[in-house]
Amino acid sequence: MEEIYVEYISEPKLTDPILIEGLPGVGNVGKLAAEHLIDKLKAKKFANIYSRFFPPQVLVGKDGVVRLVSNELFFVKKNKNNQTDIIFLVGDYQGLTPEGQYEISMKILEIAEKFNIKKIFTLGGYGLGRMVEKARVLGAATNPELVKEMKEHGVIFQEGEPGSGIVGASGLLLGLGKIQNIEGVCLMGETSGYFADPKSAQAVLGILTKILDVTIDYSELESKATQIEKITAHIQDLDTLPEKTQDDLRYIG
Amino acid sequence: MEEIYVEYISEPKLTDPILIEGLPGVGNVGKLAAEHLIDKLKAKKFANIYSRFFPPQVLVGKDGVVRLVSNELFFVKKNKNNQTDIIFLVGDYQGLTPEGQYEISMKILEIAEKFNIKKIFTLGGYGLGRMVEKARVLGAATNPELVKEMKEHGVIFQEGEPGSGIVGASGLLLGLGKIQNIEGVCLMGETSGYFADPKSAQAVLGILTKILDVTIDYSELESKATQIEKITAHIQDLDTLPEKTQDDLRYIG
Amino acid sequence: MEEIYVEYISEPKLTDPILIEGLPGVGNVGKLAAEHLIDKLKAKKFANIYSRFFPPQVLVGKDGVVRLVSNELFFVKKNKNNQTDIIFLVGDYQGLTPEGQYEISMKILEIAEKFNIKKIFTLGGYGLGRMVEKARVLGAATNPELVKEMKEHGVIFQEGEPGSGIVGASGLLLGLGKIQNIEGVCLMGETSGYFADPKSAQAVLGILTKILDVTIDYSELESKATQIEKITAHIQDLDTLPEKTQDDLRYIG
Amino acid sequence: MEEIYVEYISEPKLTDPILIEGLPGVGNVGKLAAEHLIDKLKAKKFANIYSRFFPPQVLVGKDGVVRLVSNELFFVKKNKNNQTDIIFLVGDYQGLTPEGQYEISMKILEIAEKFNIKKIFTLGGYGLGRMVEKARVLGAATNPELVKEMKEHGVIFQEGEPGSGIVGASGLLLGLGKIQNIEGVCLMGETSGYFADPKSAQAVLGILTKILDVTIDYSELESKATQIEKITAHIQDLDTLPEKTQDDLRYIG
Repeated sequence: MEEIYVEYISEPKLTDPILIEGLPGVGNVGKLAAEHLIDKLKAKKFANIYSRFFPPQVLVGKDGVVRLVSNELFFVKKNKNNQTDIIFLVGDYQGLTPEGQYEISMKILEIAEKFNIKKIFTLGGYGLGRMVEKARVLGAATNPELVKEMKEHGVIFQEGEPGSGIVGASGLLLGLGKIQNIEGVCLMGETSGYFADPKSAQAVLGILTKILDVTIDYSELESKATQIEKITAHIQDLDTLPEKTQDDLRYIG
Repeated sequence: MEEIYVEYISEPKLTDPILIEGLPGVGNVGKLAAEHLIDKLKAKKFANIYSRFFPPQVLVGKDGVVRLVSNELFFVKKNKNNQTDIIFLVGDYQGLTPEGQYEISMKILEIAEKFNIKKIFTLGGYGLGRMVEKARVLGAATNPELVKEMKEHGVIFQEGEPGSGIVGASGLLLGLGKIQNIEGVCLMGETSGYFADPKSAQAVLGILTKILDVTIDYSELESKATQIEKITAHIQDLDTLPEKTQDDLRYIG
Repeated sequence: MEEIYVEYISEPKLTDPILIEGLPGVGNVGKLAAEHLIDKLKAKKFANIYSRFFPPQVLVGKDGVVRLVSNELFFVKKNKNNQTDIIFLVGDYQGLTPEGQYEISMKILEIAEKFNIKKIFTLGGYGLGRMVEKARVLGAATNPELVKEMKEHGVIFQEGEPGSGIVGASGLLLGLGKIQNIEGVCLMGETSGYFADPKSAQAVLGILTKILDVTIDYSELESKATQIEKITAHIQDLDTLPEKTQDDLRYIG
Repeated sequence: MEEIYVEYISEPKLTDPILIEGLPGVGNVGKLAAEHLIDKLKAKKFANIYSRFFPPQVLVGKDGVVRLVSNELFFVKKNKNNQTDIIFLVGDYQGLTPEGQYEISMKILEIAEKFNIKKIFTLGGYGLGRMVEKARVLGAATNPELVKEMKEHGVIFQEGEPGSGIVGASGLLLGLGKIQNIEGVCLMGETSGYFADPKSAQAVLGILTKILDVTIDYSELESKATQIEKITAHIQDLDTLPEKTQDDLRYIG
C-alpha cells in the first residue's frame, strides 16, 4: 500500500465537476455541511482514501464491524435539482502531521485533475471563542473575480479575517490548487468553536446552495442544532474552559 | 537494513495458518494472552522483526547479553491439541509513530500473504478506568458473519463499544487486512488499564481457546494474577491517579 | 509537487550575485532588515518556494485572496547604487521540523549553485532576554579571513557568543554552504527577543550597507520602531513574561 | 547531500580496527572518556558526519568561525602504546528522532564494515539519580563469551541493570551490530546524571585501558572533576530538582 491509497468503488464519468470539501475541523462545520448536502443530493460514494497520515485506528460500527479510518469521495451528476456534476470529499480525520496534510491535499488535487475539476469549494468553521448569535459566512478565494462573485452571494470578506490564515485541507486545497490553476473558494461559518455547530453548517449551506442554485431541506440539521442546544444550555460560563482548549478549537479551519 | 527488517530463523511450511497478534497495549492483556498460548502450545520462534519505528534501544538479558528491541513471529503446526496451523505475533513494542504503526502492520500483512493467512485474531485490553470484577470479552470483526460466529462463542458486541475505535496493531491489522480480503476478529478483555492484567488475559484466552478448540492450563496466568493482586491490594483509591495517566492507558488497544 | 517546489516567475541573468537571507526569527530582525533592503533597492521577485515542511496553511490578503505560505526569492542587478548583483531570500516561515529545515537550506544552496553564488549573508536577531538600549551587531563567519574583514566593518565577534550556536536557516546556510565551499557571514542584531525589533534591523542594515557600499533611507524602519515603542511602553516588568516564552524567543536565530 | 553525509578528510588504511563510541549522553561520560582517549593516543580526525537528523544548527568557535554540528571519526594505528588499530566515534549530538538514531547507527555500521571492524566498544553513563561516591562500571555485551571476558576485567554485570535497556547509539551500535555479526560491549560508568562526570569517565577508561592494554595519563580528567566539584559543592539537596529533569538524564545512555 502506498502512503495514500485510493480504493475506487466505481469510476464515474463526470463533466466538469466541482469539488466540495467538508472534512473535520472547527465546530465540524464543514463536515456537517458537506454530509448534509451529500445526503440531500443523494450523492454516491465512489472511493475510499486510506493513508498512514491518518491515525492508526479502526472505527467500530453499530454492527460490530470495523473499518479503517478514511476519507471518502462521493459524486452526484447534474440533474434537475443541481446544475453541475459534484464530487464531495468528506472523512473521519485530516492528516495528523503538516507533511501528511500536504501529501493528502496533493493526492486530492491529482484526483481533481483526473476528473477535470476546475473549481473547489472548501467548507469550514471560523472559531470566535465566544457564543455566536447568528453565524455569518466569511470567505476567501483564489482570485479577485471569485471574491467579487462570492460577495454578490452574501459571503463576507473582512480585512484581516481570518488573520491567522486557513489551516488544514480547507486552506491547502485552495493554496495548492491555485498553483495548478484550479480556482477555489473557502466558506467559513462563524462558530464558537466549543461544540459541533449544525446552525453554522446551515449558514454555510445557505450560501453554497445559492451559488449552486439548488434547494434543499434543512430539517435534520435543525434538529441536530436543537439537540446541541439542549446539551449546552446548562453551560453558563464558557470562560471557565481551559485556555488551551479554546486555542486548539481555533486551529484547524 | 530496510525500514523494517524481517530476520528469518527458519521458514516453516504451514497450511492455511491463522495469525494471532498480542503486542503490548492496555493492561498488556493481548501480550500476556498470546505469550501464554505460545508457551502452552510450544510454538517456536521463526523470525525477528526489527525496525527504525521501534525505540532506538537494546534490552539487556539476565546474562548481560543485549538484543535489539523487536517483534517476533512464532509458529505451531496443527496437531492433536490444536486444529489449525498458527502464527503468533508478539514483541517488545508497537511502532512509536502513527506512520510507523501503519508501516509495521503492512509488513505483517505482507508476511501474512506469504504464508497464505486467511484469518487474523488480534488480542487486546479494553480499559475501563475502574477496577473490573469479572472481565468480559468485547469483540469487533471485519464482517457481520464473523460477528455472529463470535457471539456464539460468548464474545460481547455492544453498540458504541469501543467508542473511540481500536488504536494500534490490533486495529490496523484488521482494518488493513480487510482491504486485502483477510478477515479478522479483535478480542478485547475488559481491564482497569492501571496494571498488567493476567485475569483479563485469561478471559480472552477462555474465548479464544473455545474458538480454536484447544485446551490449555492457566496456572501460570493465575499465579501472575495473584502476584499483581498482592501488589495492588494496598492501593485504595484509584481516582487519585493523575487523569492523564488514565487517558493514556486507554489509548492503545 | 516535490517536497520543495520552486516556482520560477522569471530566470534573471546574474553575475556572481551574493545571497542575503532574512527569514522570520528572533525579533524578526533578519526579516525586517531583508524586506527593507528589498524595498529600498527595488528588488524584484523571481521565484516562490513552496514546501510540505512549511505549515499546512494559506494566508489571506486584504483583498480576500489566498496564497500558500512560501519563501520567496528576489533579485536586484548591480547598478549605480549597489556594487553587486544580489539575491534575497525572505518568507513567511522557516521549516517546521529540523529535517525540513535541512532540506530547505539544501534546496536554497542548490539554487545558489545554479546562480553561481559565492557569498552568503544571513541576517538574524540575537535575543538577550532583556531590553536593549543600543543594539550591537554580532557576527559569525565561515572562515577567519571573513571574520577579520567583518571586524573592520564594525561587526562584534565575542568569544562564547552566541554560546548555543546559530539555529535555523541563518546557521544552516552557512554550515552547509561551507561544506560546499560557499563562504558566508551571519549578522545578528541584539534584541530583547520579546517584540519585532525594527531598531535592531536598522543596526544590522547599518553594517550590511557599509559592506555592500550602498546608501539607503531608514524612515519606514524608524517609523515602525516608534510604533512598537508606543505599544510596548506600558509594559513595565518583562520578568512577568512566562519563562517558556522567553526561551522560545531565543531559539531560532 | 544525502540524509547522512560522510565527508572523508583522509582514508586511513587500518588492520582489523576496533570501534570506540563516545557520543553525548548521561553525564557525558562516554563523550568525556572517548575524547580523553583520542587526546592521549593522539588519534587523528579522518571524517566528519553531517545529517539532517542532527539539530539544524551551527556552532561558533572562539575565533568566530562556524561549523555545522556533526559526528566525527578519528583513528590511531597500532603502536608501542596500543595493541590494535582504533577508530573513534565522537560528536556534538546524537540523532534527534528515534528514526534518525537508527539511520545514523546503520550508517556507522556501514563504515564499520568498510574498515572491517569486528568489535565495538560503546561508552556511556548509567544515571542513578543520586550522588555517586565511587563509580562502578556496568556492562552489557552481544554474547556470553564477551560478558565473561569483561567480568575478568572488572566490569559489573548485575541482573536487571540497566532495567530499561540501553537507549541511543551506545545501545543501537551493539544491537544492530549483533545482527550483522559484529560483536560489542557497552561500558557504563555510574553517575548521578545531574552533571558532566569526568570521574565516571575515568572509571570507564580505567577498565577500557586494561582491556586495550594501554597506559594513559588522567590529569586533565582529574582537573575537570575538581572544577565540577567546586561548582556543585554548594548544591545541598538534589531532591529539589524537578522530577522530569531527573528522568531525562537517565534517558539516553
